[in-house]
Amino acid sequence: MTYADIEAAAERIAGKVHRTPVMTCAALNDRVGAQLFFKCENFQKVGAFKMRGATNAVFALSESAAQSGVATHSSGNHAQALALAARLRGISAYVVMPSNAPAVKVAAVQGYGAEIITCEPTLAAREAMVAEVIERTGATLIHPFNNDQIIAGQGTAARELLQDYPDLDFVVAPVGGGGLLSGTALAAAALAPAAKVFGAEPAGADDTFRSFAAGHIIPMTDPVTIADGLLTTVGERNFAIIQNTVTGIWTVNEAEIVAAMRLVWERMKIVIEPSAAVAVAAVIARKAEVTGARVGVILSGGNLDLGSLPW
Amino acid sequence: MTYADIEAAAERIAGKVHRTPVMTCAALNDRVGAQLFFKCENFQKVGAFKMRGATNAVFALSESAAQSGVATHSSGNHAQALALAARLRGISAYVVMPSNAPAVKVAAVQGYGAEIITCEPTLAAREAMVAEVIERTGATLIHPFNNDQIIAGQGTAARELLQDYPDLDFVVAPVGGGGLLSGTALAAAALAPAAKVFGAEPAGADDTFRSFAAGHIIPMTDPVTIADGLLTTVGERNFAIIQNTVTGIWTVNEAEIVAAMRLVWERMKIVIEPSAAVAVAAVIARKAEVTGARVGVILSGGNLDLGSLPW
Repeated sequence: MTYADIEAAAERIAGKVHRTPVMTCAALNDRVGAQLFFKCENFQKVGAFKMRGATNAVFALSESAAQSGVATHSSGNHAQALALAARLRGISAYVVMPSNAPAVKVAAVQGYGAEIITCEPTLAAREAMVAEVIERTGATLIHPFNNDQIIAGQGTAARELLQDYPDLDFVVAPVGGGGLLSGTALAAAALAPAAKVFGAEPAGADDTFRSFAAGHIIPMTDPVTIADGLLTTVGERNFAIIQNTVTGIWTVNEAEIVAAMRLVWERMKIVIEPSAAVAVAAVIARKAEVTGARVGVILSGGNLDLGSLPW
Repeated sequence: MTYADIEAAAERIAGKVHRTPVMTCAALNDRVGAQLFFKCENFQKVGAFKMRGATNAVFALSESAAQSGVATHSSGNHAQALALAARLRGISAYVVMPSNAPAVKVAAVQGYGAEIITCEPTLAAREAMVAEVIERTGATLIHPFNNDQIIAGQGTAARELLQDYPDLDFVVAPVGGGGLLSGTALAAAALAPAAKVFGAEPAGADDTFRSFAAGHIIPMTDPVTIADGLLTTVGERNFAIIQNTVTGIWTVNEAEIVAAMRLVWERMKIVIEPSAAVAVAAVIARKAEVTGARVGVILSGGNLDLGSLPW
């Protein structure tokens, strides 16, 4: 993959996803002692950057492949994004969700017109069910992160950020499966080669941190974090890019994540989800390292249950 | 007062307050069946439109008057706004606050460099204490709403909204003391004379609704509403303008306010305070009346205690 893939994705998804604003906040700048530039993907369609990759993947399909629709297994933002992207193209989306998925998430995916297929809540059951759906429908599997079109699409967020602010010293993005971080790093390598790119990860789900240090993927076994978008193990394609282009991974603990989330809500007056707060928390915790710098932060999304907040 | 006062205010406060963005939301448009344009004063300095009026009032003072500082009695957004505006001009601010004011609000005002004077939590005690402070310091009293410079300053929010979207059919703003609504109505009368301007008020603090119907001010005695910025009785100067330029007052109940607040947080991913949600709730409740129209809504602020949310 190269930056040209991100350029192609940007062209493909233009007008179909929002060009989100970049916000600044004097109070947070004071707190960190740096100039922070927040790329607000919480304002993206479906409330998360996932809409970028899903839209790119769906619209990159050939006419004949598209006829058979797309499929995925996910109960998170990717499922909603794929459902909406498929609706935009006028094709079918099949989403395999575990039987214990929250009703509100099932309803959201259904609301975008996808067909939901329920399965037992195990990885084996999910994969078997997706294989069955693909066998039956001929749909194309769109993996949430271990997919070049997804990576290229997610990279368009950093591309926009760096178009608006070309002279950043740091770019920080949360890392779960690594779709956002790998796309971000590819964009930064081309547009701001002097910028250091850091991934931000919960200490309770630090597989990328450990994998990065080890030089090979160490799967996450028992992730424990409020940042429910970052539970998964980093993908192979994502990790290969991360190894080559990312400066390092910053981990933060749960208290830091919750405090950063509340700080952003209180001072910036915007709703971000815990996974997005991980990147903010990482910058606050590495205050000494970023003093005086210009720091881009990707606020990955704003989807969470307002009925059960962590404070 | 005329629109020229708002123009003068806009010139005076330019660069000292934020020109806030106007946001739109497809989900809310669908919900209401209209095109909604939200003027985001929750992103304003100190988190509320109050910064506009306070800044205009402080910078409109003569050099000699300014030397003696400014004073007010308030425990809300106006106190913070006046404190910050005074700091921007480099003069003293004296804020009389009741002894039962929340510590977080006292700290916020202190944080902007104002001198806090504590008094008994009665209106009589507050007024007596402010008189004493003015006697002692020679400070100029800046009333939170019943003041021409405050009205002109608050009107600059609607002026910006109508510069960005000149062809609105409705403009809706919450009404408490009436500073925002009277300024909004003056701006709309000049910039969009065909637009209907409505005030939005909690049914539990509906003095402006009743006053508007009666043709004279009926003071609020026992306001009961979560919208703590709208408890006060409308001011005389404000009411005179409202009577002449506002089409009507829409009231909403507490459940509607809470539901609208949550809807905006969930779908727009921004934090608004209950007083701002009153205007959103009013538009949702008057859906039939605004169908197909272009509706401007002033989101007045985003300050509230995230630790005690009403759901």
